Parts: sequence; C-alpha cells; structure tokens
Amino acid sequence: MIRTILWADDAVVLIDQKALPGKVHYLTLTDWRDVVGAIRDLTVRGAPAIGVAAAMGIALGALQLPEASVPETRRTFARLCEAFAKARPTARNLFWAIERMQRRFDETLPGGIAEVKKALVGEAVAIGEEDVEINRRIGLNGKAFIRDGDNVLTHCNAGALATAGYGTALGVIRAAREEGKRLHVFVDETRPVLQGARLTCWELVHDRIPATLITDSMAGFLMAQGKVDLVIVGADRIAANGDTANKIGTYSLAVLAKEHGVPFYVAAPLSTIDRSMADGSGIPIEERNGGEVRELHGVRTAPVKVGVYNPAFDVTPERYITAIITEAGVAKRPCGPSLRRLLRGPA
Amino acid sequence: MIRTILWADDAVVLIDQKALPGKVHYLTLTDWRDVVGAIRDLTVRGAPAIGVAAAMGIALGALQLPEASVPETRRTFARLCEAFAKARPTARNLFWAIERMQRRFDETLPGGIAEVKKALVGEAVAIGEEDVEINRRIGLNGKAFIRDGDNVLTHCNAGALATAGYGTALGVIRAAREEGKRLHVFVDETRPVLQGARLTCWELVHDRIPATLITDSMAGFLMAQGKVDLVIVGADRIAANGDTANKIGTYSLAVLAKEHGVPFYVAAPLSTIDRSMADGSGIPIEERNGGEVRELHGVRTAPVKVGVYNPAFDVTPERYITAIITEAGVAKRPCGPSLRRLLRGPA
Repeated sequence: MIRTILWADDAVVLIDQKALPGKVHYLTLTDWRDVVGAIRDLTVRGAPAIGVAAAMGIALGALQLPEASVPETRRTFARLCEAFAKARPTARNLFWAIERMQRRFDETLPGGIAEVKKALVGEAVAIGEEDVEINRRIGLNGKAFIRDGDNVLTHCNAGALATAGYGTALGVIRAAREEGKRLHVFVDETRPVLQGARLTCWELVHDRIPATLITDSMAGFLMAQGKVDLVIVGADRIAANGDTANKIGTYSLAVLAKEHGVPFYVAAPLSTIDRSMADGSGIPIEERNGGEVRELHGVRTAPVKVGVYNPAFDVTPERYITAIITEAGVAKRPCGPSLRRLLRGPA
Repeated sequence: MIRTILWADDAVVLIDQKALPGKVHYLTLTDWRDVVGAIRDLTVRGAPAIGVAAAMGIALGALQLPEASVPETRRTFARLCEAFAKARPTARNLFWAIERMQRRFDETLPGGIAEVKKALVGEAVAIGEEDVEINRRIGLNGKAFIRDGDNVLTHCNAGALATAGYGTALGVIRAAREEGKRLHVFVDETRPVLQGARLTCWELVHDRIPATLITDSMAGFLMAQGKVDLVIVGADRIAANGDTANKIGTYSLAVLAKEHGVPFYVAAPLSTIDRSMADGSGIPIEERNGGEVRELHGVRTAPVKVGVYNPAFDVTPERYITAIITEAGVAKRPCGPSLRRLLRGPA
C-alpha cells in the first residue's frame, strides 16, 4: 500500500509529491518549520494528508517545548499551532487536526511537559492511523455506487497521496475494485498543478487499475458521448448544508454531470465538514501564485505581461451533488440534514 | 497589424506559431511539402489560416507543374490537393480552400500551364486578402454584442494568428475596442497545446487589450461569481443546422454558459460552414498524439504507462449557441434557417 506520511523515530517521513511521478522519494523532517514549508509548497497536499501532516508537525514542535511556566508554554504552543493554521487556508482538515492537538494539549498540560510531549506524539500517530481506517470505511460505504463495467471520472488527487493512505475518492474506486468489479477511470489532469496527471495516474498505474488521462477541458465531450457513468471527487471543506469546496474545476464538472444526468459523488471524512459554515459562500478560497499558470516545470507558456487569476479551489453547491460519502455513512440530498445525522453518530 | 501568412516572391511566409510567445519568427517556405508539414505540426493552425496556407501551398505546388498532357497535369494536381486534404481532418476551411483552388485550376487549364500557374497564385493571394477583409466584417457584425465594461471569455485562439489577420472571435473583440469600448478578456489557456496562453495572450498583450489568463477548469467558477458577461469563440466546422466543431473544451464552456445565463457566440466566416453535414454528428474529430497531454515542452507530466485520450475538437450543439456571427450577418437561433439565408446572400 502507498503510504504518504508516517511518524518514525521522532521525525515526520513523507513522500515528496512534487517529485512524482518521476521519482519516488521520501523526505525525513525533524524540524516542525519544515513541515509547515512542506504543506505550503505542496510537497504534501490533499485535505486529509494536510491534517495528518499538521498533527505530526505540531507533535514535532511539542517535542521541543522547553520546561517553562504554564502560561509561557501555552503561548509557545499557540504560536506553533498558529504557524500551521496559516500554512493554507481552505482545507478544513488542517484546522480540525490543529483543534484536536490543541484539546490534547489542554488535557495533558496539567500533568507537565513530558506528559504533553508523549500525548501529542500519540495523538498525531493516531490521527494518521485513523485516517487510513476512515478511508477504508468510506470505500465500503461508497463502493456500491460503482457498478461492474463503469467508467468513473475523477478530478485532482483524492487518493492515497491526499490522505495517510488508501484515499477518499480513490478509496471508493479501490474498494469497488477489491470486490472484483471491472472499472475504468478517466483522470482529469487538473491544471495548474497537475495532481491528476502526476499523482492520480501514478497511483492507478501502481495499483494496475485501468486509467485514461484527459485534459480538464475534455470531460464535457466525454459525457456527451456517454462515456462517463459517474463522477467521484474528494473535498477540501464541506459546509453544513453540503456545499463543497474542492480543487478548481470541480464545480465545472458538477455542472456538466448535471447536464448529462451523470451522478456526482463527493467522498470525504467527517473531519472535512465545517459545521460553522452554514453554506459554501463563506469558505475562504486560496489564490495561488500566477506562475503556476504561466509556467510549467520552469517552462514559460504565456507572455510575462499577461495577468493571471489562480484560485486553487471552487465551491460546488449542494444541489449538484448526488451524495456525500463519509466513513459514517452516505449523505443524500438534501445533504444538510443527512450530514447532521451522520455527525451525531449512531443513536 | 499582426500578419500570420503572406505570399512573397513565390514563397509562403508564415509566423512560426510553435515558437510563440517566446520568439516572433517568420519561416519562408518554397516547397509545398513544407507547407503540408507546417499545417500538420501546428506551425500554422486555426481553421481560416489553415485554409489560406493550403491555398498558398497549392499555388507553390502549381508553380512546379511540368509541361505535360492535360490528363497527366490533372493527375499531378489532384495528388497535390490530396496531400493538403490529408493534412488535418476537422477544419472545413481547408477543404473549402482546396475546392476553390481546384475550380480555378479547372477554369484555367484549357489556357495552358502558364495560365494555371498565374491564376492559382492570384487565387491564393486573393484568399488571404479576402480573409482579412472578411474578419473585419465579422468584427463589425459582432461588436454590438459586447457592451462597454464587459468581461469576455474566449477559448483557444481565434485571433489574427488563426486567420490571415485580425481574427474572428478576437476580431469582434478588436472591433468593439476600436469603437472605444472598455473591455477585459479572460483567456482559457486551452490545454493541451495552450493556444490560449501562448497565442491569444500574446495577441492581446500586443494590442494592449486588458487580459487575464486562466486554466480551462476555472471558467465555471468565474461564471458562478458573475465575472463573465459573454463567451465568444471561433469554429473549425459548422454543420448546416449550426452545430459547431471547435477546439476541445468549447462544448464544456457552452454548457457552463447556458447554466449561468451567459450568452455564447461563435464567430466564423461562411467558409467554415459545411452544407453537406446536416448536423454535427458526422464531423470528423481529429485525435492527436497522447504526448501532447503527457508532456509539455518535452517535460513529462504523467506516468508513461497511463493511456491518453486526446481529441483536438468537440461539437457544441446549436441549442447552446446564442448566435453565429459571420461576414454576411448574424445567424440567431434556430441557426439552420438563418445560416441558409446568409449563405444565399442578399436578395
């Protein structure tokens, strides 16, 4: 199984996603600042993976907490968390992981610094291990939506590489495959950073799942030809009503799916849901450097003088989403009440 | 004014579009086979420009016709035309230009080879000059669709570089600008060959028209934010009923425009209309090499082992098109009867 991020020997070991698919190379980070950098520069990306990386990065930082007064330790830890919170703005899982580490810190601080350190390392490792387990449950809950022989379209990378392992959208595809279904995946290359071409194709080739790469602009033409049976994507943040922020281009796909009567599924852990956002209008959308669009691997593709708009995400309104697949079950439309039930857990 | 292709001193002079925007370089071709190659490898592209290039290439070939019997000359000329007809399959203007050169050949052959040569050079030069004039008329007929302050979205390059000069979709934008309207253009980069990023942005920077480059996947999100007032694109082949083949991704844009109530215009000369095709279902869609998607400027972006689907065009059904702007007037929906009226000419 592809492992994206691990805790080993008081270090964070993560696969360098910028080097894929050319090189499979793991980085060993021992300074929490390098983990912030890895999140910021997309060495590690994908909402759940960002959450795990932040948790492990905070654990690394906690290991360096000096003996100090309780207020001083609180301030140092708050600054550490703040540095991670600023790394990227859209993925809900980042803030979810920080909040969880913060709670564990608050619980254990009365026991002293040594207890804090042990507890935070344990919590970060648990977040990573739980993530793989959550993805397997998402896969089990979603696999029935894929029928034998289906052509599945996916966007960006919501695979093992976007999580601690197994993946969300690709987890559903893997689960369908594991029960023997024949399927074929169309992969949007996902400009500008090409997570589809570089990462999703690499995972599918790795797992010998039949796949065809397309440019993002080809999805509509494929659907018009009846070549797409369903669309399945991940999520970076889901509002309480089901509106979903995900990689730029997801919204266009959802509109195209609706126009062609193709089901459109979102696969994500409950930690992606932001209960504080009533709908998607308030989700902060990261705008990244224009160089990502104007250049590729250092090769310039457009005149320097032209302006660039480069939002990394868009928001798909709940009305375009057939169902949201989580580890706790499937939220069908209207997604708001269904998501609330899933968040409350079994009665 | 940007000139894309010219006849000069028994040679075809054309701008090397593969070198743009990095280098502005004109090639001088004296062998008709090199013109076929330039069409095939996208050194010259854009349906009207391909038509002009083919006409001039056939004129180059005609200059080399030896003194021979009439049947022998007919066979040689047919082979010459056939080589151009095979260069690319979708653009109607290519076949239109070949047919026009063929007619001129048939008219002049009885007068002898010398007359054929003179007539065919004259015809090719006329096709190039008429093309610029046609584009200016398209601009005049379309400019009222752009209001002061509008944000226009375009796809691929339907500019000076796609024609002998001035452009079709960009011709409409230029005409609106020339009458003093303020406007701003969003340019789809247009993967895989990036004609939007490389060529349209270069033209707009050249003409100091405000422009912003986006990836193809961003158009839907822009529309959802109310940032697009109209879409205008060119065409490679228009069926009798108005169904329009154009660069891959055009159909997705048209669906998105419909969903957001944004008008969607096609700008093209009458020579793009294929009266022999009742609707778009029969238009041949060129599939190009997977390397265009898997690599960019020689840099690999996806695993070698993944399959690629790379159709160069898609077909937008007439029902998504607000109007087709031609040099003879504007065809509004239903486009079929309107196009027939325009093709018949003024009563």
